[in-house]
Amino acid sequence: MATIKEISRNRVHGGEQLRIQHHSAVLSCDMIFGVFLPPQAASGPVPVLYWLSGLTCTDENFTQKAGAQRLASKLGLAIVCPDTSPRGTDLPGEHDDWDFGSGAGFYVNATREPWSAHYQMFDYVTEELPAIIEANFPVTDQRSVSGHSMGGHGALMCALKKPENYCSVSAFAPICHPSETRWGIKAFSHYLGEDRNEWLEWDATQLVCKTDRQLPILIDQGADDEFLGDELKPGSLEQACICTHHPLQVNMREGYDHSYYFITSFIDDHLRYHARALGLLK
Amino acid sequence: MATIKEISRNRVHGGEQLRIQHHSAVLSCDMIFGVFLPPQAASGPVPVLYWLSGLTCTDENFTQKAGAQRLASKLGLAIVCPDTSPRGTDLPGEHDDWDFGSGAGFYVNATREPWSAHYQMFDYVTEELPAIIEANFPVTDQRSVSGHSMGGHGALMCALKKPENYCSVSAFAPICHPSETRWGIKAFSHYLGEDRNEWLEWDATQLVCKTDRQLPILIDQGADDEFLGDELKPGSLEQACICTHHPLQVNMREGYDHSYYFITSFIDDHLRYHARALGLLK
Repeated sequence: MATIKEISRNRVHGGEQLRIQHHSAVLSCDMIFGVFLPPQAASGPVPVLYWLSGLTCTDENFTQKAGAQRLASKLGLAIVCPDTSPRGTDLPGEHDDWDFGSGAGFYVNATREPWSAHYQMFDYVTEELPAIIEANFPVTDQRSVSGHSMGGHGALMCALKKPENYCSVSAFAPICHPSETRWGIKAFSHYLGEDRNEWLEWDATQLVCKTDRQLPILIDQGADDEFLGDELKPGSLEQACICTHHPLQVNMREGYDHSYYFITSFIDDHLRYHARALGLLK
Repeated sequence: MATIKEISRNRVHGGEQLRIQHHSAVLSCDMIFGVFLPPQAASGPVPVLYWLSGLTCTDENFTQKAGAQRLASKLGLAIVCPDTSPRGTDLPGEHDDWDFGSGAGFYVNATREPWSAHYQMFDYVTEELPAIIEANFPVTDQRSVSGHSMGGHGALMCALKKPENYCSVSAFAPICHPSETRWGIKAFSHYLGEDRNEWLEWDATQLVCKTDRQLPILIDQGADDEFLGDELKPGSLEQACICTHHPLQVNMREGYDHSYYFITSFIDDHLRYHARALGLLK
Protein backbone atom coordinates (compact mmCIF):
# COMPACT_ATOMS: atom_id res chain seq x y z
CA MET A 1 0.00 0.00 0.00
CA ALA A 2 1.40 3.38 -1.02
CA THR A 3 2.05 5.96 1.65
CA ILE A 4 -0.29 8.86 2.11
CA LYS A 5 0.60 12.42 3.07
CA GLU A 6 -1.55 14.79 5.11
CA ILE A 7 -1.72 18.20 3.42
CA SER A 8 -4.04 19.93 5.85
CA ARG A 9 -6.26 19.24 8.83
CA ASN A 10 -9.02 21.55 10.05
CA ARG A 11 -11.30 20.95 12.96
CA VAL A 12 -14.94 21.41 11.98
CA HIS A 13 -18.08 20.68 14.00
CA GLY A 14 -16.07 18.59 16.43
CA GLY A 15 -14.59 16.38 13.71
CA GLU A 16 -11.58 16.71 11.43
CA GLN A 17 -11.52 17.68 7.76
CA LEU A 18 -8.34 16.31 6.17
CA ARG A 19 -6.76 16.71 2.75
CA ILE A 20 -4.61 13.75 1.78
CA GLN A 21 -2.14 13.36 -1.09
CA HIS A 22 -1.09 9.99 -2.42
CA HIS A 23 0.25 8.30 -5.53
CA SER A 24 -2.48 6.48 -7.42
CA ALA A 25 -1.24 3.33 -9.13
CA VAL A 26 -4.52 3.09 -11.05
CA LEU A 27 -4.31 6.63 -12.40
CA SER A 28 -0.49 6.78 -12.65
CA CYS A 29 -0.33 10.19 -11.01
CA ASP A 30 -0.48 11.90 -7.63
CA MET A 31 -3.97 12.64 -6.35
CA ILE A 32 -5.55 14.57 -3.50
CA PHE A 33 -8.72 13.60 -1.69
CA GLY A 34 -10.66 14.99 1.25
CA VAL A 35 -11.79 12.91 4.18
CA PHE A 36 -14.01 14.12 6.99
CA LEU A 37 -13.77 12.13 10.20
CA PRO A 38 -16.59 12.68 12.69
CA PRO A 39 -15.78 12.76 16.42
CA GLN A 40 -17.09 9.17 16.77
CA ALA A 41 -14.11 7.98 14.69
CA ALA A 42 -11.87 8.63 17.69
CA SER A 43 -13.49 5.77 19.57
CA GLY A 44 -14.18 3.25 16.81
CA PRO A 45 -14.59 2.72 13.08
CA VAL A 46 -17.40 4.57 11.28
CA PRO A 47 -19.06 3.99 7.90
CA VAL A 48 -18.20 6.14 4.87
CA LEU A 49 -20.14 8.19 2.37
CA TYR A 50 -18.26 8.67 -0.91
CA TRP A 51 -19.10 11.98 -2.60
CA LEU A 52 -18.35 12.38 -6.30
CA SER A 53 -18.21 15.98 -7.49
CA GLY A 54 -19.20 17.51 -10.80
CA LEU A 55 -17.46 19.15 -13.75
CA THR A 56 -14.66 21.61 -12.87
CA CYS A 57 -14.66 20.62 -9.20
CA THR A 58 -11.80 19.40 -7.05
CA ASP A 59 -11.84 17.54 -3.75
CA GLU A 60 -12.62 20.85 -2.00
CA ASN A 61 -15.93 22.12 -3.41
CA PHE A 62 -18.09 19.79 -1.37
CA THR A 63 -16.05 20.07 1.81
CA GLN A 64 -16.15 23.88 1.75
CA LYS A 65 -19.63 24.57 0.41
CA ALA A 66 -22.07 21.75 1.19
CA GLY A 67 -22.20 22.20 4.95
CA ALA A 68 -22.34 18.42 5.38
CA GLN A 69 -19.98 18.16 8.34
CA ARG A 70 -22.54 19.57 10.79
CA LEU A 71 -24.94 16.64 10.51
CA ALA A 72 -22.26 14.05 9.66
CA SER A 73 -20.68 14.88 13.03
CA LYS A 74 -23.92 14.09 14.79
CA LEU A 75 -24.56 10.92 12.78
CA GLY A 76 -21.02 9.53 13.04
CA LEU A 77 -20.48 9.39 9.29
CA ALA A 78 -17.15 9.82 7.50
CA ILE A 79 -17.21 11.52 4.08
CA VAL A 80 -14.60 10.93 1.39
CA CYS A 81 -14.32 13.39 -1.51
CA PRO A 82 -12.06 12.34 -4.41
CA ASP A 83 -10.95 14.70 -7.13
CA THR A 84 -12.81 14.66 -10.46
CA SER A 85 -9.98 13.54 -12.78
CA PRO A 86 -6.32 12.60 -12.86
CA ARG A 87 -4.04 15.57 -12.10
CA GLY A 88 -0.54 16.65 -12.96
CA THR A 89 -0.69 15.09 -16.39
CA ASP A 90 -0.51 17.07 -19.61
CA LEU A 91 -2.21 15.12 -22.36
CA PRO A 92 -3.04 16.82 -25.69
CA GLY A 93 -6.06 19.09 -25.13
CA GLU A 94 -6.50 17.89 -21.55
CA HIS A 95 -6.79 21.36 -20.05
CA ASP A 96 -8.50 23.17 -22.94
CA ASP A 97 -12.17 22.61 -22.08
CA TRP A 98 -14.00 22.81 -18.76
CA ASP A 99 -16.29 19.91 -19.73
CA PHE A 100 -13.62 17.45 -20.84
CA GLY A 101 -10.21 16.25 -19.59
CA SER A 102 -8.94 17.64 -16.29
CA GLY A 103 -11.83 18.23 -13.88
CA ALA A 104 -14.06 16.08 -16.09
CA GLY A 105 -13.03 12.43 -15.78
CA PHE A 106 -16.67 11.25 -15.85
CA TYR A 107 -15.80 8.33 -13.53
CA VAL A 108 -15.27 5.96 -16.47
CA ASN A 109 -12.35 3.70 -17.36
CA ALA A 110 -11.01 5.16 -20.60
CA THR A 111 -10.14 2.66 -23.33
CA ARG A 112 -8.72 5.05 -25.92
CA GLU A 113 -5.25 6.57 -26.05
CA PRO A 114 -3.94 8.84 -24.73
CA TRP A 115 -6.65 8.87 -22.03
CA SER A 116 -6.49 5.20 -21.09
CA ALA A 117 -3.04 5.65 -19.49
CA HIS A 118 -4.53 7.78 -16.70
CA TYR A 119 -8.30 8.21 -16.94
CA GLN A 120 -9.35 5.09 -14.98
CA MET A 121 -11.56 6.99 -12.59
CA PHE A 122 -14.11 4.22 -12.10
CA ASP A 123 -11.52 1.80 -10.80
CA TYR A 124 -10.00 4.59 -8.74
CA VAL A 125 -13.19 5.57 -6.90
CA THR A 126 -14.59 2.04 -6.53
CA GLU A 127 -11.42 0.04 -5.79
CA GLU A 128 -8.16 1.84 -5.13
CA LEU A 129 -9.56 4.70 -3.08
CA PRO A 130 -11.78 2.59 -0.77
CA ALA A 131 -8.80 0.28 -0.16
CA ILE A 132 -6.64 3.27 0.81
CA ILE A 133 -9.38 4.72 3.01
CA GLU A 134 -10.02 1.45 4.79
CA ALA A 135 -6.31 0.77 5.35
CA ASN A 136 -5.49 4.22 6.72
CA PHE A 137 -8.50 5.61 8.57
CA PRO A 138 -10.81 4.38 11.34
CA VAL A 139 -13.64 3.33 9.05
CA THR A 140 -15.66 0.21 8.39
CA ASP A 141 -16.24 -1.31 4.96
CA GLN A 142 -19.84 -0.08 5.03
CA ARG A 143 -20.03 2.40 2.14
CA SER A 144 -22.61 4.63 0.55
CA VAL A 145 -22.19 6.85 -2.48
CA SER A 146 -23.61 10.17 -3.66
CA GLY A 147 -22.61 12.97 -5.98
CA HIS A 148 -23.58 15.97 -8.07
CA SER A 149 -24.14 16.32 -11.81
CA MET A 150 -21.29 14.39 -13.51
CA GLY A 151 -20.57 12.99 -10.04
CA GLY A 152 -24.24 12.17 -9.55
CA HIS A 153 -23.96 9.99 -12.62
CA GLY A 154 -20.75 8.58 -11.20
CA ALA A 155 -22.59 7.64 -8.02
CA LEU A 156 -25.35 5.96 -10.02
CA MET A 157 -22.76 3.96 -11.99
CA CYS A 158 -21.00 2.87 -8.79
CA ALA A 159 -24.26 1.54 -7.38
CA LEU A 160 -25.51 0.00 -10.62
CA LYS A 161 -22.22 -1.65 -11.64
CA LYS A 162 -21.11 -2.69 -8.13
CA PRO A 163 -24.25 -2.82 -5.98
CA GLU A 164 -22.63 -5.27 -3.59
CA ASN A 165 -20.11 -2.59 -2.60
CA TYR A 166 -22.62 0.00 -1.37
CA CYS A 167 -25.40 0.19 1.19
CA SER A 168 -27.18 3.11 -0.51
CA VAL A 169 -26.95 5.58 -3.38
CA SER A 170 -28.26 9.06 -4.01
CA ALA A 171 -27.57 11.92 -6.39
CA PHE A 172 -28.09 15.65 -6.78
CA ALA A 173 -29.02 16.78 -10.28
CA PRO A 174 -27.25 13.84 -11.91
CA ILE A 175 -26.53 13.47 -15.58
CA CYS A 176 -28.87 10.54 -16.22
CA HIS A 177 -28.32 9.55 -19.82
CA PRO A 178 -24.84 10.71 -20.92
CA SER A 179 -24.71 8.67 -24.11
CA GLU A 180 -27.53 10.88 -25.45
CA THR A 181 -26.48 14.31 -24.18
CA ARG A 182 -23.77 16.75 -25.22
CA TRP A 183 -21.36 16.61 -22.26
CA GLY A 184 -21.53 12.83 -22.21
CA ILE A 185 -21.15 12.37 -25.96
CA LYS A 186 -18.08 14.61 -25.96
CA ALA A 187 -16.48 12.76 -23.06
CA PHE A 188 -17.39 9.24 -24.14
CA SER A 189 -16.24 9.69 -27.74
CA HIS A 190 -12.79 10.66 -26.46
CA TYR A 191 -12.50 8.29 -23.50
CA LEU A 192 -14.31 5.28 -25.01
CA GLY A 193 -14.12 5.78 -28.76
CA GLU A 194 -16.81 6.12 -31.38
CA ASP A 195 -18.41 2.66 -30.96
CA ARG A 196 -21.54 3.58 -29.07
CA ASN A 197 -22.10 0.01 -27.94
CA GLU A 198 -19.18 0.49 -25.57
CA TRP A 199 -20.87 3.53 -24.07
CA LEU A 200 -23.80 1.49 -22.79
CA GLU A 201 -21.65 0.13 -19.96
CA TRP A 202 -21.20 3.70 -18.69
CA ASP A 203 -24.71 5.11 -18.91
CA ALA A 204 -26.98 4.92 -15.87
CA THR A 205 -30.16 4.76 -17.93
CA GLN A 206 -28.76 1.72 -19.76
CA LEU A 207 -27.27 0.16 -16.63
CA VAL A 208 -30.60 0.19 -14.81
CA CYS A 209 -31.73 -2.46 -17.30
CA LYS A 210 -28.77 -4.71 -16.49
CA THR A 211 -28.30 -4.65 -12.74
CA ASP A 212 -29.27 -7.74 -10.78
CA ARG A 213 -29.27 -6.22 -7.30
CA GLN A 214 -31.62 -3.26 -7.17
CA LEU A 215 -30.31 -0.63 -4.80
CA PRO A 216 -33.04 2.04 -4.47
CA ILE A 217 -32.08 5.40 -5.99
CA LEU A 218 -32.78 8.78 -4.35
CA ILE A 219 -32.45 11.88 -6.52
CA ASP A 220 -32.98 15.54 -5.73
CA GLN A 221 -33.30 17.80 -8.76
CA GLY A 222 -33.76 21.57 -8.93
CA ALA A 223 -36.73 22.45 -11.10
CA ASP A 224 -34.97 25.66 -12.23
CA ASP A 225 -31.69 23.88 -13.00
CA GLU A 226 -30.24 25.48 -16.13
CA PHE A 227 -28.98 22.07 -17.36
CA LEU A 228 -32.11 20.08 -16.62
CA GLY A 229 -33.53 19.66 -20.11
CA ASP A 230 -30.38 19.45 -22.22
CA GLU A 231 -27.84 17.61 -20.09
CA LEU A 232 -29.44 15.88 -17.10
CA LYS A 233 -32.64 14.26 -18.44
CA PRO A 234 -33.93 12.54 -15.31
CA GLY A 235 -37.01 11.56 -17.31
CA SER A 236 -34.92 9.02 -19.26
CA LEU A 237 -33.81 7.35 -16.05
CA GLU A 238 -37.32 7.45 -14.63
CA GLN A 239 -38.64 5.72 -17.73
CA ALA A 240 -35.99 3.01 -17.50
CA CYS A 241 -36.70 2.48 -13.80
CA ILE A 242 -40.41 2.14 -14.49
CA CYS A 243 -39.74 -0.48 -17.17
CA THR A 244 -37.41 -2.49 -14.94
CA HIS A 245 -39.28 -1.90 -11.66
CA HIS A 246 -36.11 -0.36 -10.25
CA PRO A 247 -37.00 1.64 -7.11
CA LEU A 248 -36.40 5.37 -7.72
CA GLN A 249 -37.48 8.52 -5.93
CA VAL A 250 -36.98 11.87 -7.69
CA ASN A 251 -37.68 14.97 -5.63
CA MET A 252 -38.18 17.98 -7.92
CA ARG A 253 -37.32 21.11 -5.95
CA GLU A 254 -39.13 24.23 -7.13
CA GLY A 255 -36.94 27.29 -7.66
CA TYR A 256 -33.60 25.56 -7.12
CA ASP A 257 -30.75 25.64 -9.64
CA HIS A 258 -27.61 23.55 -10.28
CA SER A 259 -25.35 25.25 -7.71
CA TYR A 260 -24.03 24.31 -4.30
CA TYR A 261 -26.79 26.49 -2.83
CA PHE A 262 -29.11 23.72 -4.00
CA ILE A 263 -26.91 20.95 -2.62
CA THR A 264 -26.53 22.53 0.80
CA SER A 265 -30.31 22.98 1.00
CA PHE A 266 -30.98 19.23 0.77
CA ILE A 267 -27.74 17.55 1.84
CA ASP A 268 -29.12 16.80 5.31
CA ASP A 269 -31.96 14.76 3.79
CA HIS A 270 -29.44 12.68 1.87
CA LEU A 271 -27.13 12.24 4.86
CA ARG A 272 -30.05 10.90 6.89
CA TYR A 273 -31.03 8.61 4.01
CA HIS A 274 -27.55 7.10 3.89
CA ALA A 275 -27.28 7.01 7.69
CA ARG A 276 -30.40 4.84 7.82
CA ALA A 277 -28.98 2.45 5.23
CA LEU A 278 -25.68 2.33 7.12
CA GLY A 279 -27.37 1.54 10.42
CA LEU A 280 -26.60 4.90 12.04
CA LEU A 281 -30.25 5.98 12.19
CA LYS A 282 -33.46 4.04 12.54
CA MET B 1 -30.81 56.82 -4.23
CA ALA B 2 -28.63 55.10 -6.81
CA THR B 3 -30.04 52.18 -8.72
CA ILE B 4 -29.01 48.66 -7.88
CA LYS B 5 -28.49 45.76 -10.25
CA GLU B 6 -29.10 42.09 -9.49
CA ILE B 7 -26.14 39.99 -10.64
CA SER B 8 -27.35 36.60 -9.46
CA ARG B 9 -30.09 34.97 -7.43
CA ASN B 10 -29.94 31.45 -5.99
CA ARG B 11 -32.56 29.74 -3.94
CA VAL B 12 -31.09 28.28 -0.78
CA HIS B 13 -32.86 26.72 2.20
CA GLY B 14 -36.15 28.21 1.06
CA GLY B 15 -34.78 31.77 0.89
CA GLU B 16 -32.91 33.71 -1.78
CA GLN B 17 -29.20 34.49 -1.92
CA LEU B 18 -28.68 37.58 -4.08
CA ARG B 19 -25.59 39.35 -5.38
CA ILE B 20 -26.19 43.06 -6.01
CA GLN B 21 -24.04 45.60 -7.81
CA HIS B 22 -24.37 49.34 -7.23
CA HIS B 23 -22.42 52.56 -7.45
CA SER B 24 -21.16 53.68 -4.08
CA ALA B 25 -21.08 57.46 -3.73
CA VAL B 26 -19.10 57.10 -0.49
CA LEU B 27 -16.40 54.91 -2.06
CA SER B 28 -16.55 56.49 -5.55
CA CYS B 29 -16.63 53.11 -7.26
CA ASP B 30 -18.94 50.24 -8.15
CA MET B 31 -19.40 47.65 -5.42
CA ILE B 32 -21.00 44.23 -5.05
CA PHE B 33 -22.67 42.95 -1.93
CA GLY B 34 -24.54 39.77 -1.01
CA VAL B 35 -27.93 39.73 0.64
CA PHE B 36 -29.72 36.65 1.89
CA LEU B 37 -33.47 37.01 2.24
CA PRO B 38 -35.17 34.33 4.34
CA PRO B 39 -38.59 33.03 3.28
CA GLN B 40 -40.26 35.22 5.91
CA ALA B 41 -39.22 38.31 3.92
CA ALA B 42 -41.89 37.44 1.36
CA SER B 43 -44.61 38.27 3.87
CA GLY B 44 -43.08 41.17 5.80
CA PRO B 45 -39.89 43.02 6.71
CA VAL B 46 -37.20 41.12 8.61
CA PRO B 47 -34.20 42.31 10.65
CA VAL B 48 -30.67 42.23 9.22
CA LEU B 49 -27.34 40.82 10.31
CA TYR B 50 -24.38 42.59 8.68
CA TRP B 51 -21.40 40.29 8.21
CA LEU B 52 -17.97 41.86 7.67
CA SER B 53 -15.41 39.52 6.12
CA GLY B 54 -11.68 39.27 6.64
CA LEU B 55 -8.52 39.91 4.63
CA THR B 56 -8.59 38.72 0.99
CA CYS B 57 -12.32 37.98 1.10
CA THR B 58 -15.08 39.26 -1.15
CA ASP B 59 -18.84 39.32 -0.60
CA GLU B 60 -18.96 35.61 -1.44
CA ASN B 61 -16.79 33.81 1.12
CA PHE B 62 -19.36 33.92 3.88
CA THR B 63 -22.34 33.21 1.66
CA GLN B 64 -20.68 30.12 0.14
CA LYS B 65 -18.81 28.68 3.11
CA ALA B 66 -20.41 29.61 6.43
CA GLY B 67 -23.61 27.59 6.05
CA ALA B 68 -25.56 30.40 7.72
CA GLN B 69 -28.60 30.34 5.46
CA ARG B 70 -29.94 27.12 6.96
CA LEU B 71 -30.65 28.58 10.39
CA ALA B 72 -31.24 32.14 9.14
CA SER B 73 -34.12 30.72 7.08
CA LYS B 74 -35.68 29.25 10.18
CA LEU B 75 -35.11 32.39 12.26
CA GLY B 76 -36.32 34.86 9.64
CA LEU B 77 -33.06 36.79 9.53
CA ALA B 78 -31.61 38.59 6.49
CA ILE B 79 -27.83 38.64 6.13
CA VAL B 80 -25.92 41.33 4.25
CA CYS B 81 -22.32 40.70 3.20
CA PRO B 82 -20.39 43.70 1.84
CA ASP B 83 -17.07 43.42 0.09
CA THR B 84 -13.87 44.09 2.05
CA SER B 85 -12.55 47.14 0.17
CA PRO B 86 -13.28 49.47 -2.73
CA ARG B 87 -12.99 47.69 -6.10
CA GLY B 88 -12.16 48.64 -9.65
CA THR B 89 -9.70 51.30 -8.57
CA ASP B 90 -5.98 51.15 -9.30
CA LEU B 91 -4.12 53.18 -6.69
CA PRO B 92 -0.32 52.86 -6.39
CA GLY B 93 0.46 49.56 -4.66
CA GLU B 94 -3.23 48.81 -4.05
CA HIS B 95 -3.08 45.27 -5.39
CA ASP B 96 0.47 44.33 -4.38
CA ASP B 97 -0.14 42.87 -0.90
CA TRP B 98 -2.84 40.55 0.40
CA ASP B 99 -2.94 42.33 3.76
CA PHE B 100 -3.24 45.90 2.49
CA GLY B 101 -5.26 47.75 -0.17
CA SER B 102 -7.79 45.76 -2.18
CA GLY B 103 -9.40 43.08 -0.04
CA ALA B 104 -8.06 44.80 3.06
CA GLY B 105 -9.99 48.03 3.66
CA PHE B 106 -10.00 47.50 7.43
CA TYR B 107 -13.41 49.23 7.68
CA VAL B 108 -11.80 52.60 8.47
CA ASN B 109 -12.28 56.01 6.85
CA ALA B 110 -8.88 56.78 5.31
CA THR B 111 -7.57 60.30 5.80
CA ARG B 112 -4.40 60.08 3.73
CA GLU B 113 -4.02 60.35 -0.03
CA PRO B 114 -4.40 58.51 -2.28
CA TRP B 115 -6.52 56.19 -0.07
CA SER B 116 -8.93 58.82 1.23
CA ALA B 117 -10.56 59.23 -2.18
CA HIS B 118 -12.02 55.71 -1.99
CA TYR B 119 -11.23 53.90 1.25
CA GLN B 120 -14.16 55.14 3.35
CA MET B 121 -15.29 51.67 4.33
CA PHE B 122 -16.60 52.63 7.77
CA ASP B 123 -19.07 55.12 6.34
CA TYR B 124 -19.94 52.63 3.62
CA VAL B 125 -20.84 49.74 5.92
CA THR B 126 -22.49 51.83 8.66
CA GLU B 127 -24.34 54.45 6.58
CA GLU B 128 -24.54 54.09 2.82
CA LEU B 129 -25.04 50.33 2.69
CA PRO B 130 -27.76 50.13 5.38
CA ALA B 131 -29.60 52.97 3.63
CA ILE B 132 -29.47 51.06 0.34
CA ILE B 133 -30.56 47.83 2.01
CA GLU B 134 -33.45 49.43 3.82
CA ALA B 135 -34.63 51.29 0.71
CA ASN B 136 -34.52 48.27 -1.62
CA PHE B 137 -35.28 45.13 0.36
CA PRO B 138 -38.04 43.98 2.73
CA VAL B 139 -36.11 44.62 5.94
CA THR B 140 -36.59 46.57 9.13
CA ASP B 141 -34.07 49.01 10.59
CA GLN B 142 -33.22 46.49 13.31
CA ARG B 143 -29.56 45.62 12.68
CA SER B 144 -26.90 43.42 14.20
CA VAL B 145 -23.29 43.08 13.15
CA SER B 146 -20.70 40.33 13.13
CA GLY B 147 -17.54 39.47 11.25
CA HIS B 148 -14.30 37.53 11.03
CA SER B 149 -10.72 38.59 11.69
CA MET B 150 -10.31 42.06 10.08
CA GLY B 151 -14.10 42.01 9.74
CA GLY B 152 -14.50 40.94 13.34
CA HIS B 153 -12.65 44.11 14.28
CA GLY B 154 -14.88 45.98 11.84
CA ALA B 155 -17.94 44.64 13.65
CA LEU B 156 -16.52 45.68 17.02
CA MET B 157 -15.87 49.18 15.69
CA CYS B 158 -19.40 49.46 14.29
CA ALA B 159 -20.87 48.57 17.66
CA LEU B 160 -18.45 50.65 19.71
CA LYS B 161 -18.58 53.77 17.54
CA LYS B 162 -22.30 53.62 16.68
CA PRO B 163 -23.94 51.48 19.37
CA GLU B 164 -27.30 53.14 18.73
CA ASN B 165 -27.37 51.61 15.25
CA TYR B 166 -27.11 47.94 16.32
CA CYS B 167 -29.04 45.57 18.53
CA SER B 168 -26.10 43.20 19.05
CA VAL B 169 -22.50 42.52 18.05
CA SER B 170 -20.33 39.43 17.82
CA ALA B 171 -17.06 38.42 16.20
CA PHE B 172 -15.11 35.37 15.11
CA ALA B 173 -11.37 35.54 15.77
CA PRO B 174 -11.32 39.34 15.56
CA ILE B 175 -8.24 41.49 15.37
CA CYS B 176 -8.64 43.14 18.77
CA HIS B 177 -5.87 45.70 19.00
CA PRO B 178 -4.77 46.66 15.47
CA SER B 179 -2.73 49.71 16.49
CA GLU B 180 -0.31 47.34 18.21
CA THR B 181 -0.14 44.46 15.71
CA ARG B 182 1.53 44.09 12.33
CA TRP B 183 -1.46 43.94 9.96
CA GLY B 184 -3.08 46.89 11.70
CA ILE B 185 0.07 49.01 11.86
CA LYS B 186 0.67 48.49 8.15
CA ALA B 187 -2.89 49.42 7.24
CA PHE B 188 -3.29 52.32 9.63
CA SER B 189 0.01 53.96 8.71
CA HIS B 190 -1.12 54.10 5.09
CA TYR B 191 -4.81 54.86 5.56
CA LEU B 192 -4.50 57.16 8.59
CA GLY B 193 -0.92 58.43 8.53
CA GLU B 194 1.87 58.18 11.05
CA ASP B 195 0.22 60.10 13.92
CA ARG B 196 -0.77 57.26 16.18
CA ASN B 197 -3.22 59.40 18.10
CA GLU B 198 -5.48 59.21 15.06
CA TRP B 199 -5.36 55.43 15.18
CA LEU B 200 -7.04 55.32 18.58
CA GLU B 201 -10.39 56.10 16.98
CA TRP B 202 -10.10 52.89 14.95
CA ASP B 203 -8.93 50.38 17.55
CA ALA B 204 -11.50 48.31 19.42
CA THR B 205 -9.36 48.00 22.53
CA GLN B 206 -9.13 51.79 22.71
CA LEU B 207 -12.76 52.34 21.76
CA VAL B 208 -14.02 50.16 24.60
CA CYS B 209 -12.78 52.88 26.94
CA LYS B 210 -14.77 55.59 25.15
CA THR B 211 -18.18 54.14 24.39
CA ASP B 212 -21.13 55.41 26.38
CA ARG B 213 -23.63 52.69 25.45
CA GLN B 214 -22.26 49.29 26.33
CA LEU B 215 -23.43 46.71 23.82
CA PRO B 216 -22.32 43.27 25.13
CA ILE B 217 -19.65 41.63 22.98
CA LEU B 218 -19.65 37.92 22.05
CA ILE B 219 -16.42 36.48 20.62
CA ASP B 220 -15.56 32.98 19.49
CA GLN B 221 -11.87 32.30 19.07
CA GLY B 222 -10.07 29.15 17.91
CA ALA B 223 -7.43 28.11 20.41
CA ASP B 224 -5.26 26.75 17.56
CA ASP B 225 -5.68 29.87 15.40
CA GLU B 226 -2.35 30.50 13.71
CA PHE B 227 -2.78 34.30 14.11
CA LEU B 228 -3.93 34.29 17.72
CA GLY B 229 -0.80 35.50 19.46
CA ASP B 230 0.66 37.87 16.91
CA GLU B 231 -2.30 39.52 15.20
CA LEU B 232 -5.55 38.99 17.12
CA LYS B 233 -4.67 39.53 20.79
CA PRO B 234 -8.07 39.03 22.43
CA GLY B 235 -6.31 39.42 25.79
CA SER B 236 -5.87 43.15 25.14
CA LEU B 237 -9.58 43.59 24.56
CA GLU B 238 -10.43 41.45 27.57
CA GLN B 239 -8.21 43.61 29.77
CA ALA B 240 -9.83 46.80 28.48
CA CYS B 241 -13.30 45.35 29.04
CA ILE B 242 -12.41 44.37 32.59
CA CYS B 243 -11.17 47.91 33.32
CA THR B 244 -14.28 49.55 31.87
CA HIS B 245 -16.78 46.90 33.03
CA HIS B 246 -17.77 46.37 29.41
CA PRO B 247 -19.67 43.07 29.07
CA LEU B 248 -17.62 40.59 27.03
CA GLN B 249 -17.79 36.84 26.53
CA VAL B 250 -14.87 35.10 24.81
CA ASN B 251 -15.36 31.42 23.96
CA MET B 252 -12.00 29.77 23.36
CA ARG B 253 -12.55 26.77 21.07
CA GLU B 254 -10.00 24.01 21.50
CA GLY B 255 -8.49 22.68 18.27
CA TYR B 256 -10.08 25.25 15.93
CA ASP B 257 -8.07 27.42 13.56
CA HIS B 258 -8.72 30.68 11.65
CA SER B 259 -10.57 29.18 8.68
CA TYR B 260 -14.19 29.05 7.59
CA TYR B 261 -14.31 25.51 9.03
CA PHE B 262 -14.13 27.27 12.39
CA ILE B 263 -16.77 29.84 11.47
CA THR B 264 -19.25 27.28 10.16
CA SER B 265 -18.84 25.26 13.37
CA PHE B 266 -20.11 28.10 15.56
CA ILE B 267 -22.14 30.34 13.27
CA ASP B 268 -25.43 28.91 14.55
CA ASP B 269 -24.59 30.01 18.10
CA HIS B 270 -24.00 33.54 16.86
CA LEU B 271 -27.13 33.60 14.71
CA ARG B 272 -29.21 32.61 17.73
CA TYR B 273 -27.45 35.26 19.84
CA HIS B 274 -28.36 37.96 17.33
CA ALA B 275 -31.86 36.55 16.82
CA ARG B 276 -32.53 36.94 20.52
CA ALA B 277 -31.35 40.57 20.47
CA LEU B 278 -33.46 41.23 17.38
CA GLY B 279 -36.59 39.77 18.96
CA LEU B 280 -36.74 36.69 16.71
CA LEU B 281 -36.02 34.24 19.54
CA LYS B 282 -36.80 34.33 23.22
